[in-house]
Amino acid sequence: MEKERAIQIDLCSSRKEKPRDDELEFGKTFADHMFVMDYSEAQGWHDARIVPYEPLTMEPSSMVFHYGQSVFEGMKAYLTPEGDAQLFRPERNFKRMNHSNDRLCIPPIDEAFALKALKQLVSLEKEWIPKAMGTSLYIRPFIISTEPFLGVAPSRYYKFMIILSPVGAYYEEGINPIKIAVENDYVRTVKGGTGEAKTGGNYAASLKAQEAAEEGIAQVLWLDGMEKKYIEEVGSMNVFFKIDGKVVTPALNGSILEGVTRDSVIELLKHWEIPVDERKLSIDELYQAHQEGKLEEAFGAGTAAVISPIGQLVWSGHHLDINQGETGAIAKQLYNTLTGIQYGEIIDPFGWIVPIEETDSSSLKATV
Amino acid sequence: MEKERAIQIDLCSSRKEKPRDDELEFGKTFADHMFVMDYSEAQGWHDARIVPYEPLTMEPSSMVFHYGQSVFEGMKAYLTPEGDAQLFRPERNFKRMNHSNDRLCIPPIDEAFALKALKQLVSLEKEWIPKAMGTSLYIRPFIISTEPFLGVAPSRYYKFMIILSPVGAYYEEGINPIKIAVENDYVRTVKGGTGEAKTGGNYAASLKAQEAAEEGIAQVLWLDGMEKKYIEEVGSMNVFFKIDGKVVTPALNGSILEGVTRDSVIELLKHWEIPVDERKLSIDELYQAHQEGKLEEAFGAGTAAVISPIGQLVWSGHHLDINQGETGAIAKQLYNTLTGIQYGEIIDPFGWIVPIEETDSSSLKATV
Repeated sequence: MEKERAIQIDLCSSRKEKPRDDELEFGKTFADHMFVMDYSEAQGWHDARIVPYEPLTMEPSSMVFHYGQSVFEGMKAYLTPEGDAQLFRPERNFKRMNHSNDRLCIPPIDEAFALKALKQLVSLEKEWIPKAMGTSLYIRPFIISTEPFLGVAPSRYYKFMIILSPVGAYYEEGINPIKIAVENDYVRTVKGGTGEAKTGGNYAASLKAQEAAEEGIAQVLWLDGMEKKYIEEVGSMNVFFKIDGKVVTPALNGSILEGVTRDSVIELLKHWEIPVDERKLSIDELYQAHQEGKLEEAFGAGTAAVISPIGQLVWSGHHLDINQGETGAIAKQLYNTLTGIQYGEIIDPFGWIVPIEETDSSSLKATV
Repeated sequence: MEKERAIQIDLCSSRKEKPRDDELEFGKTFADHMFVMDYSEAQGWHDARIVPYEPLTMEPSSMVFHYGQSVFEGMKAYLTPEGDAQLFRPERNFKRMNHSNDRLCIPPIDEAFALKALKQLVSLEKEWIPKAMGTSLYIRPFIISTEPFLGVAPSRYYKFMIILSPVGAYYEEGINPIKIAVENDYVRTVKGGTGEAKTGGNYAASLKAQEAAEEGIAQVLWLDGMEKKYIEEVGSMNVFFKIDGKVVTPALNGSILEGVTRDSVIELLKHWEIPVDERKLSIDELYQAHQEGKLEEAFGAGTAAVISPIGQLVWSGHHLDINQGETGAIAKQLYNTLTGIQYGEIIDPFGWIVPIEETDSSSLKATV
């Protein structure tokens, strides 16, 4: 684990021009600085530093290129109406990163230290947080294996980095309902696999199904890899269905990613006393509920899109319209509340918000 | 697909010192040059070149670091007693790479052009092929996604590279029997997943089982991900069992890697008129066969180790000795024949050998 230590700062000589809020794309522009630390068996995690955003120098034999040992996280920094920067449940992301690390045989990080580093970095790059509603500064912590060695074994060297990207909405359509298709051929993962971990291989495996999907399908709905019967998750989100007045989401089973937004949705529903069930949910049950007129809403939940209402579900030739293709009341309420809390427009009764304090930036200046 | 075009050559100014044959390790030292070509949507595969082996410059947002879109291959160049360099069924590797590319949504390469490039590269680096028996020049073609973009989608830019590493034996123990354990908890892949593709995520997923295995276990034996009942493959090899006079190997089922050595073993056994069956094989059947004294041999087959006899199989507390822990007659015969053909000491009646011709190096010189 990481010892408490100073973060070295190397500021860039000139700032890049920032994109206008109305020309933001997702994940294509990066802030001026990034956080980096290295791992070796001898030194553990060391050389924590904030440096100019710049290309990496990597050996062609770096293990990440060959054996895929990598993990990542995704979260956002938001600007409040008062102009303060804040994070949403970031400790959950670093906790999950260590969970992923364990599955991928990557040494654990010190979660508190990582959060401290992130706050320093965001404090330094506060001007990169865009101001328009729905925009934010996307935060991508990730770890890659860097040992120059062609053999199947855990790497003995790693790099942990945090990069920042000012982003607009994940879907250009905004909160409009999307169309998703149940995937019957390809499988994302299976119990005993890496589905619970946020690792590159899961996403690489998912691309083919998306490519094979018909025109207009925004995401695919994954079924379990064993029986191809139970609903797992949607593309890059967890998924919720309102059936006969009750909200249902697949229970965590070892192959579903434990989403931070998923957990927040469940807490909000409980807070509102809307019944919510985490359980196994088969595609047959879902189809049956639709036929009986009991499938009232469907939506995805994830950091990038927050809440994505699902207007149509395509399964084995059936095109199931949900809530007449409109955004449902619960999806709308969840979206408004979550974004309201994230952007500091609604009081956060849950302790989810982590403000970026002035002290984060002053401690930073002190170490320059 | 790649148009026929010249390969640009940029030779390094001074050659590195080569390791002695008796100090070779696996995958740690690399030859002086590598082959590189780039892909963009506009240009397809382009800028084919042989350049000095040197670090890559990669954006921190390069997709391979985040979404694991990568494939690789492994093969070897051998030196004959006459001092000629030769390859073993390299066209199979490039064919499999395209199969992997398809699953990973990576644009296909021109297989014939890739082979031509490889022959030029090996011709140039012939002095890097070590001479001692059991040593060879390991060849690692690989493709990584390089677009600087944080979004789950196929990359629009890629890099294809071939790097070379002089290697000793994969197992320091040599052809001595290894101990393997049946994996009951972790799963490598499942039908509909990426098991048939040679992609980093499969290997990343495999590390944890190896870490969790008891002392002395060289590799784990994977069961199918659906029922955890049927044998799939061993660590980085395909697997064969001789049961009651007949050789059995799991049939290709969509989650097993189609090994080049596996195919060569099957062809050799057929050539020798030893009965060989590609079929489903359950761990229960294997245990039963052992109890009845009918499990006569077991061995893994792969490029790195060629043939690895299995002396003991550990399954749910049972320690099954196979052939008294000795290398079996068939494993020995296969090893001797395969390596004999690969090193040019035995006539190749199958057309497996691809010699590196003098013309490969003269065409090279012509383009310098």
